Amino acid sequence: MRNEAPPMNALRIGICGNGTVGGGTLELLRTGAERLERRARRPLMPVRLGARRDREDCPVGDLIVHRDLLEVARAEDVDVLVECIGGTGLARELVETALRSGKSVVTANKALIAEQGNELLAIAEAHGVSLLCEAAVAGGIPILKALREGMAGNQVTSVSGIINGTGNFILTAMGAEQRAFDDVLAEAQALGYAEADPTFDVEGIDAAHKLTILAAMAFETRFDFSGVHCEGISQVTPADIEFARELGYRIKHLGIAKETQDGVELRVHPTLLPAQSLLANVDGVLNAVCLEGHAAGPTVYCGAGAGREATASAIVADLMDLARAEGKPCSTLGVDTEALRDASAVPMDKVRCPWYLRLEAEDRPGVMSELGSCLGAEGISIEALIQKPPKSPGDTVTIVVLSNEAEEQALRKAIEAITAMDAVKGTPHSIRVEE
Amino acid sequence: MRNEAPPMNALRIGICGNGTVGGGTLELLRTGAERLERRARRPLMPVRLGARRDREDCPVGDLIVHRDLLEVARAEDVDVLVECIGGTGLARELVETALRSGKSVVTANKALIAEQGNELLAIAEAHGVSLLCEAAVAGGIPILKALREGMAGNQVTSVSGIINGTGNFILTAMGAEQRAFDDVLAEAQALGYAEADPTFDVEGIDAAHKLTILAAMAFETRFDFSGVHCEGISQVTPADIEFARELGYRIKHLGIAKETQDGVELRVHPTLLPAQSLLANVDGVLNAVCLEGHAAGPTVYCGAGAGREATASAIVADLMDLARAEGKPCSTLGVDTEALRDASAVPMDKVRCPWYLRLEAEDRPGVMSELGSCLGAEGISIEALIQKPPKSPGDTVTIVVLSNEAEEQALRKAIEAITAMDAVKGTPHSIRVEE
Repeated sequence: MRNEAPPMNALRIGICGNGTVGGGTLELLRTGAERLERRARRPLMPVRLGARRDREDCPVGDLIVHRDLLEVARAEDVDVLVECIGGTGLARELVETALRSGKSVVTANKALIAEQGNELLAIAEAHGVSLLCEAAVAGGIPILKALREGMAGNQVTSVSGIINGTGNFILTAMGAEQRAFDDVLAEAQALGYAEADPTFDVEGIDAAHKLTILAAMAFETRFDFSGVHCEGISQVTPADIEFARELGYRIKHLGIAKETQDGVELRVHPTLLPAQSLLANVDGVLNAVCLEGHAAGPTVYCGAGAGREATASAIVADLMDLARAEGKPCSTLGVDTEALRDASAVPMDKVRCPWYLRLEAEDRPGVMSELGSCLGAEGISIEALIQKPPKSPGDTVTIVVLSNEAEEQALRKAIEAITAMDAVKGTPHSIRVEE
Repeated sequence: MRNEAPPMNALRIGICGNGTVGGGTLELLRTGAERLERRARRPLMPVRLGARRDREDCPVGDLIVHRDLLEVARAEDVDVLVECIGGTGLARELVETALRSGKSVVTANKALIAEQGNELLAIAEAHGVSLLCEAAVAGGIPILKALREGMAGNQVTSVSGIINGTGNFILTAMGAEQRAFDDVLAEAQALGYAEADPTFDVEGIDAAHKLTILAAMAFETRFDFSGVHCEGISQVTPADIEFARELGYRIKHLGIAKETQDGVELRVHPTLLPAQSLLANVDGVLNAVCLEGHAAGPTVYCGAGAGREATASAIVADLMDLARAEGKPCSTLGVDTEALRDASAVPMDKVRCPWYLRLEAEDRPGVMSELGSCLGAEGISIEALIQKPPKSPGDTVTIVVLSNEAEEQALRKAIEAITAMDAVKGTPHSIRVEE
């Protein structure tokens, strides 16, 4: 139990969760207490901790500890709840309870905001409190603040980025060492970069959650997680990475959101990026996001996308905003929820981009001409082409095509025709290109 | 004259200057009026314009125009003065007058803030108003917001960046096309990237102004422009860029501020950076800044460092902060001026870094051994070395050395000894290295 009451002007913080994120946040608040008080002109004071069990790496100190986490969300002496338990079950209940009892909430929970953010924002607004989630996207990079405030004078036309460090680590290692996906994934799991069940990361679900939040803020739309088209990286091969390099590209797992005349494009997929672009050179577990504003032009933000300290840095930045605002609500998305539009996500059929195609074919005359016809019939032209000689006489050859811009539905039809060609073995593999 | 009074809750803006920055700001406020009002929940309304003469590219519309700019700074119906005239004479008078009459000020004037910011901040604080200058550093990149708010939970240990686009354009073109400094400078002037008098840009004074502001915010110190060590890029040769490349480096004109045990290092100079680092890959007129926080780790911010629209984007972001704060002052540096320390800049003699040395010597035995002795006598060892064969027999050879970390005073002594060597022609050329 605490010995003294917190100072009158303190921002009183209740933390739920004492794992990596909760423990890291508590540590940063404690070790930086003097610095934070100087900058906020008031103390940021953790007062209660909700945790099912004690953990050695998260000493309780003089905090009041609750095994029932909802008690923290209801406690009268808590101004802000920091939700660090993850998931969309109890976390939802905690956040909603806190908001309804007039507390602001800070969270790193991208799934919760992406999937249930519309209801939660409305509740926060109705109760005159804040719901901030800087730590939910791109870890230590203050990307939501840059978008909501730094770009406040801009019409933002696109947001794209490497927003899953695990996937970027895997693609980087596959490219650097010519290793297969499964092999690198196993290493990433051993290093602790990937979960035992890697689905969320490698299939793009985690990136889709983050993209949902970025898009809502960029385009002033409601969260539309179900509108995000999501492709993982497990089909990318070291050969694809090598062919891309030969063509002057790198392959990255990107989240892309673009405002178009037909609605908002929301997509997560492997992407060929020009080798000299900044995003193409962001390697390993780093994250990077590119914002395109009509006045500021493109700006790129890069840094650690995860980790105990980086996540805590973002949570404490949100807490500092709340402390400095002195009770005035801080906007989550930069506009009131009633001003938000529906995202009306563009169907992927209609999304246009250049394409990378890789296929295996018999090494005989006429194949190229037939391939060109299959593409040409759908209005697709060939911008660049690689054909390697067969390894042994009689082997099939690998053909790689870089096409001009085409709608996905046209490409799918062309691929059907190509697959039906006598000389072609198996189904061509396709990856989108961004220029 | 205006026909209608602005709405009660409008943020009433007076703009001084109708050139590139003032005109761009006015245009962004006008074309984005609806968007800005939605986001700020109140109109951002230009009401007065101070300009010595009319300009066709800055239509006056319904603004009240003043030929005496000080009238704008004193006008009772102006909430915020936007200072876009530059310089430290009349601009100072305008800003001071506005602050003393209870108006907040937004400015892109890096010289004014770097050189006179200490007095101006004290005046703003005393009058309970804000003095914001996002546009003064790195144009459209919201770097001051990232540092002051995004990194608010961090002890920032270093800030370094490419903060002058003209210099970066010149170095990039010199490297890409093997052209001499003077040649590229002339092209930059023809393209409008460099001023007729390029001193401010190429000698690093502009970068030193920006570094002064970044360092004050990062380390919570008073502005110390006179403490910045400043070297330009006019001594860098295409050969240096090529040798650096061979050693795995790029040459960039960096502003570097580091907190050390001895005080704050404040320096602007050409710098060898590892080729794979993000800053090394920022080319052309782009700016980029790397912040190193104790919790967030390194984060990098990249974008347009200048230009009409990008600068206006940053000015409008400041105006949006003021509009959203509804009269509550917004802090310039993130702490009160009374909490600021002196920077106590570290003398360059004491700054340690690895070095690049290039020298001309006769092609004869014993030169390398003597060179090694000159360096070794000062405790400097050779990490890498390039010696090219003479172009014709009897010609001198170029020798390039990459040293380990050494204090500048040790390096200067070694260079004196090397210059005195019989075989060495002229004075060795030295450039600092950052790892």
